[in-house]
Amino acid sequence: MAKRVVIVGGGVAGISVLRNLLARKGEVREGINLTLIKREKSGWLSTCGLPFALQGWYEINKTEVNKPQFFIDQAVDFRTENEVTKIHVEGNSVTLKTGEVLLYDYLVIATGRVPNVPPALGEVKLGGVYTFSNEDDARKLEVAMGETKTAVIIGGGIIGLQTALAFSKKGIKTTVVEMFPYLLPAILDADMASAVKTWLEKNIAFILGRSVSALKGEERVRSVIVGSEEIPADMVLISAGMRPNVDIARDAGLEIGETRGILTDSALHVKKGRSYVKNVYAVGDCVQVIDGITHHPRLSQMASTSVVQAKVIADNILSDMTGNPALYSSYEPCLSPTVMNIGGLLVGSVGVTSEAAARAGIKMISGQATKLTKARYFPGASSLTLKLIFDAYTMKLIGAQIVGEATVAERVNEFAVAIHAGMTAEEIRNMERGFDPSLSLLTDVTINAAENALGITPVT
Amino acid sequence: MAKRVVIVGGGVAGISVLRNLLARKGEVREGINLTLIKREKSGWLSTCGLPFALQGWYEINKTEVNKPQFFIDQAVDFRTENEVTKIHVEGNSVTLKTGEVLLYDYLVIATGRVPNVPPALGEVKLGGVYTFSNEDDARKLEVAMGETKTAVIIGGGIIGLQTALAFSKKGIKTTVVEMFPYLLPAILDADMASAVKTWLEKNIAFILGRSVSALKGEERVRSVIVGSEEIPADMVLISAGMRPNVDIARDAGLEIGETRGILTDSALHVKKGRSYVKNVYAVGDCVQVIDGITHHPRLSQMASTSVVQAKVIADNILSDMTGNPALYSSYEPCLSPTVMNIGGLLVGSVGVTSEAAARAGIKMISGQATKLTKARYFPGASSLTLKLIFDAYTMKLIGAQIVGEATVAERVNEFAVAIHAGMTAEEIRNMERGFDPSLSLLTDVTINAAENALGITPVT
Repeated sequence: MAKRVVIVGGGVAGISVLRNLLARKGEVREGINLTLIKREKSGWLSTCGLPFALQGWYEINKTEVNKPQFFIDQAVDFRTENEVTKIHVEGNSVTLKTGEVLLYDYLVIATGRVPNVPPALGEVKLGGVYTFSNEDDARKLEVAMGETKTAVIIGGGIIGLQTALAFSKKGIKTTVVEMFPYLLPAILDADMASAVKTWLEKNIAFILGRSVSALKGEERVRSVIVGSEEIPADMVLISAGMRPNVDIARDAGLEIGETRGILTDSALHVKKGRSYVKNVYAVGDCVQVIDGITHHPRLSQMASTSVVQAKVIADNILSDMTGNPALYSSYEPCLSPTVMNIGGLLVGSVGVTSEAAARAGIKMISGQATKLTKARYFPGASSLTLKLIFDAYTMKLIGAQIVGEATVAERVNEFAVAIHAGMTAEEIRNMERGFDPSLSLLTDVTINAAENALGITPVT
Repeated sequence: MAKRVVIVGGGVAGISVLRNLLARKGEVREGINLTLIKREKSGWLSTCGLPFALQGWYEINKTEVNKPQFFIDQAVDFRTENEVTKIHVEGNSVTLKTGEVLLYDYLVIATGRVPNVPPALGEVKLGGVYTFSNEDDARKLEVAMGETKTAVIIGGGIIGLQTALAFSKKGIKTTVVEMFPYLLPAILDADMASAVKTWLEKNIAFILGRSVSALKGEERVRSVIVGSEEIPADMVLISAGMRPNVDIARDAGLEIGETRGILTDSALHVKKGRSYVKNVYAVGDCVQVIDGITHHPRLSQMASTSVVQAKVIADNILSDMTGNPALYSSYEPCLSPTVMNIGGLLVGSVGVTSEAAARAGIKMISGQATKLTKARYFPGASSLTLKLIFDAYTMKLIGAQIVGEATVAERVNEFAVAIHAGMTAEEIRNMERGFDPSLSLLTDVTINAAENALGITPVT
C-alpha cells in the first residue's frame, strides 16, 4: 500500500519537502501519497521575493512560482486555506480545522513563524500598524504605501531594511528604529554595519540603540514614541523578529527548545518525552538548530536553511520507506550563510559575529581589509570590505562578514565551505586564488584580511 | 651586517618576492639589502594585463604598475636591462653579463619561461611570426596588428584565445589551430570546451585536432600548412605553451625535473646533487610543482601560483634571518585555480580535468548541471554550466570546471577551498548556501551538479 506523507505548512520548508519527494517518488515501489495542508491560497510562493516586489522589481503575483494546480496535477492532495489544528502522535493522525482527520505514515511539521510584537507595545489595535511575513501582508502594505506620507519601521533587520527601501522609493519619509546600537546585529558587527547605515541614510532616517515605547493615535496610528521623541507616522511596520509557530507541536506534547523552536535530532525527528519520534519531522522556521560554531541552540529562519533540512527529511523518509540505509542523510550544525541586496549594497555573513563569539565565551582574533574587487581600469571594479573572525586558539575560521557592491553572494559560500572544513588563517593566507585582471586582483582582500589577523604586514 | 638577497628575474614572481621582503624588512634587525636583476626595462609590469591592452581596454603603458624608480626609491638595487649569466652556488655569488660579480646570502631564481616553438616548425626565420610572453612582444604585436589582414594563431590555450580576440576586434581574419580536438585542453574537458568554441566562432575560425606542419613564405610569412590545407596568414602567433627558463639553473648544477622545471622542496629550496640548498630558492614559471590531486610533477605557469610561492619564500628567508621558526611557511601541492575572461565568457577550472584524472589512473565520477545564476526577472541573470569531478572511491571533490558570464571567478575559489579541504559530494550537496533572490537561486547549480554525480534526482 502506498505510504502516506502529510506535510503541515506550505511555506518554502513544506514545499521543499514536497518537491523533493515528488521528484524522487519513483524510488519507492509501493508509491507515496502526498498531502500538504496550508493556510494561504498560494501554491509555491517565494516569500523572499516579496520585499523586492514592494520595491517595484515586479508584481507581487510574480512571486507565486507554482499555483496549487501544479501540485494537484501531480496527484498531490494539496489543500489551501485549510489548517491542521491537532496532531495525534500516538494515533499517527492530524485533525483539520474542518474536523476531518487524516492518517499518516510520516508527518512533516513546517508551521513556520509568526511576527514578534515587542511586549512594550502591548496588544496593537490601531489601524496603520503592520507586520510582514507573507503575501497577504505584502498586499496590505502595497495598498497602505499608496496612502502613506510618513512611516516608522521597528527593527533594523533584513525585512525592516528591505521594506524601508520600498517605502523610501515610494517617497515615504521613513524612519527605522533599532534597539541595538547598529543595524543587522544578528549578522554584522558594529564596524561592518556602519557601512550599511551610511549607504542608506541618504534616503532613510535611523534611530539606533533605542526602543519604541508606545504607538500613539486614535483608531489609526499617528506617531511613535522613542524615549522623549515623538515621530510622526501614518504607518508603522513591526519587524522585530519572528518567533517559531509551534502551537500545535506544543499541544501535541512535542519538546520545544529554549529558543521556542521545535527540538529535533540530526535526522530532524521531533522529540516527545525522552524519545525521538521516528516518523515525525520538523523543518524550517519553526525548528531549533544547533549553531555550528558555539554549539548553542538557536534559530535559523531562512529559506536557505529550510531547503537543506527539506532534503535531509526527504532522504530519511525515502531511506525508511525503502529500507535502504544509503539514502539516509543528516543535518549538520548550522552556519547560516546569509546574503542580502540592500538597494545595491550587498551584505554577507556566515558563522559567528564577534558579538556572538564573545557572548559564547569564544576568544577570537579578527582581521579586516578593504580593497577593490579587480583592477580599477576594468568596468565593475568596486570596493569590498571583509572581516574574518578566527578562533584564537586554533586560528580556524569561525565567521566572515562582507560588505560591497559585487562578489559578496559568492564569497559567502566560499567562507561557508572554509568554516565547515576548519580552514585556518594560515591556510587561507597561502591558498592560491584564480586571477584574471579583468575579474580579480593578484592579491585578494581575503589574503590581506587573513594576514591582518595573523599580524603579518600585508602586501597589497 | 645587513643580509644580502639577490633576486634573478623581474616578472611577477621575482617582483612578488621583492615586494614581500620590502613590506616586512623591519622584522630583521640587521636589515636586508635587496637586489633585483631583470632583462626588461620595466619595473613591475602586469604581464597578465597585456592581452587586454591589445584588446583595446587600455594602453600597454598602463600595465606597468610601478616604474623601476619606485623600487630604487626604497633602496632596492633594481637593475633593469641586465642579466645573470652564472650562478655559483658554492661561492654564494652570481655573475652578471657585464662581468660584475654579486655576493648573496640568499638567492631567488625567478627566471620565468620562454615560448615553445613546435619542433615541426624548425627554426623560424620568416618575418611576421611572433610569440607573446612579455611587453616587447606586446608592442611588436600591436604594430603588426595594424598591418595585418589575416592571421593564424598556433595554440588554443589562454594566450592564444586572448590574442585571437584582440586580432578579431581589429578586423583581422583570424584562425586558431589547436592540436587537441578541443580548446583549453589544459583546464577543460571536451564537453565544457565546446561552449567556448561556440561563443567565439562568430568572429574566429577554429581548426581543432590538427597541427601546423609548416609556415610558408619568403622573408615574410604568407600562409600556414595544416594537413593538406593552406591557410593565408600575413601574421602568425606561436602560442604553443611555454617552457621553464632554466639555463643558468642547469649550468649551476641544480636539479631540473621531468617537466623541465627547477626541482624544489616544500620550502622552495632548490636541489643540488642529493641535497637541498638552504639559501637558494626558485619561484614562478621556472619551477616544477607537485599536482595536488595526482601528486605528479607538473608546471603551474600562472601569476597566481607565483604570488603564493613568493610569500612562502619571503616567510622562509625572514624565518632564517631572524631565527624565528614561527615565520616559516610551506608550499602545498598545487591546485592551480584558473579563471579567464574570453570576451565576456568566463571560464574557470581548478584541480584535475577528467582527461588528467584518466591519464593518472584516477577513477572518477562527474556531475554536471546548467542553471541561471539567479531568478530570471533580476538584471544580470545568466546561464552557468558547472562540472564537478569526484574521486570515485572517496567521492571527494578533485576538480571543477565552470563556464558562464558571471560568478565564475568567485566560484573557482570556493571549489579550490572545497578540494583543499577534501569535501565530498554528499557534503557539497547538503551545504547551505546564501540565498537572496536578486543574487542567487534557492537551489544553486552546485547542488544539482553534486546530485547528478551522486545519482540523486535533482530538485531544480
